[in-house]
Amino acid sequence: MNIISEVTSHGGMQGVFSHESDVTKTTMTFAVFVPPQATREPRPVLWYLSGLTCTHANVMEKGEYRRLAAELGLIVVCPDTSPRGDDVPDEATNWQMGKGAGFYLDATEAPWAENYQMYSYVTEELPALIASKFRADMSRQGIFGHSMGGHGAMTIALKHPDRFKSCSAFAPIVEPSTADWSMGAFEKYLGSDKSAWRSYDAVALVKDGARFPEFLIDQGLADGFLQNGLRPWLFEEAVKGTGIELTLRNHPRYDHSYYFISSFMDDHLRWHAERLG
Amino acid sequence: MNIISEVTSHGGMQGVFSHESDVTKTTMTFAVFVPPQATREPRPVLWYLSGLTCTHANVMEKGEYRRLAAELGLIVVCPDTSPRGDDVPDEATNWQMGKGAGFYLDATEAPWAENYQMYSYVTEELPALIASKFRADMSRQGIFGHSMGGHGAMTIALKHPDRFKSCSAFAPIVEPSTADWSMGAFEKYLGSDKSAWRSYDAVALVKDGARFPEFLIDQGLADGFLQNGLRPWLFEEAVKGTGIELTLRNHPRYDHSYYFISSFMDDHLRWHAERLG
Repeated sequence: MNIISEVTSHGGMQGVFSHESDVTKTTMTFAVFVPPQATREPRPVLWYLSGLTCTHANVMEKGEYRRLAAELGLIVVCPDTSPRGDDVPDEATNWQMGKGAGFYLDATEAPWAENYQMYSYVTEELPALIASKFRADMSRQGIFGHSMGGHGAMTIALKHPDRFKSCSAFAPIVEPSTADWSMGAFEKYLGSDKSAWRSYDAVALVKDGARFPEFLIDQGLADGFLQNGLRPWLFEEAVKGTGIELTLRNHPRYDHSYYFISSFMDDHLRWHAERLG
Repeated sequence: MNIISEVTSHGGMQGVFSHESDVTKTTMTFAVFVPPQATREPRPVLWYLSGLTCTHANVMEKGEYRRLAAELGLIVVCPDTSPRGDDVPDEATNWQMGKGAGFYLDATEAPWAENYQMYSYVTEELPALIASKFRADMSRQGIFGHSMGGHGAMTIALKHPDRFKSCSAFAPIVEPSTADWSMGAFEKYLGSDKSAWRSYDAVALVKDGARFPEFLIDQGLADGFLQNGLRPWLFEEAVKGTGIELTLRNHPRYDHSYYFISSFMDDHLRWHAERLG
């Protein structure tokens, strides 16, 4: 693991690191905020998965999570959204496919399968690295994210209810296998057999029996992607009668940006901290 | 005034606006955060002046001021740091001169004097626009800033003690007329007669009799510009016996970045709010 930068902030340390990933076969970059309490004892880990076009840096710069994460003693890990590098397949003019658009899945189709293994990366390889390099209490993990990263957080929580104690999302894509901006990517990454798409789709996972105790979702009603891309009501419908508790909060006037995310960041951090102990 | 963007954030509105400036003879861009209370009553105005290389956007994206400004009911105005445009003189390879480096002074030397009138811009033209377009209580104004913008805030407060009720700075340049990174710009903007530099130099202003009741300065001790550029101890020395109260806080491990600024943003907002009533 290479240190790209380590900067003191809000009494803790905001770091950016890179490492050679066996899973993606590329150099991967990620951000970690270490709260001051981690100098004394292992602290819970909160994973933040970012949205389309983002890197680790967007939430690090604009998410406004450090003040309260420092107070609550949360380690916040922010991975990249895809493999990077000149040799990595991409569709340079398509922001919904390739670099910046890994969708937190393991691609099975050529040429994408070689590097686009973001599901294994964020659920196996990076957690092992975090556990080995930081004073992280891996028995207390939560996960959240934004948009494509909300999709990632929700699907990963649904598939790992024993690992994660908490999950939340800002404006998540809840049914990517039927949404305009993700269907094309799913077909290229996973092939045309849509049964393979279901394990990366929160609504389909719930319909297929996956369970997680409770979710917090915040959604802006002035979000331009709400009607065709995000559609949280599909998840609201899917969880009915399942025992899954959903707190879905709709916010008039808020859009899809980090001005929205940062407005409700405190609520999400407290949601996770309460469940992480 | 043209609206570039207006986005809901933390219950208020973060806007970016532009207008044709008579003072700089260019299109100027600035950011304004309007707290929710401004829908009911005029609110105090807090000016934030940014540092070298910045635009209005750096603090808007990374300053983390909206949560508490919304709570305290402060309008936060963030001007650009210089005139912009293809016809504006510049030294493209020198980040300490020209665009992004207006030093909040009125240039007197050619070719700079034509556009580089940032002192008049931020003290006269932009305040008049803010007063006319927002529900601003101009009888309650505070001013703060970072680095070059800390210099701007302190010098402007010292020259307008009746207008501003509060002033603070993050890692300010306190004596730009003798600092490595500003002497070159001062000579080009103001000429070689150093007596003309004194009214844009906080230490010189105090020595020449200017007074402001009290200042809050936060400084990181891991700031790479501390020894040759910032030197807050020169201001500490200058105010001795003047009646000016200085709260100078030195913070081990903090650098010059927005990771430092955002860490102490809450303290500064509260400092101003207490004095703005």
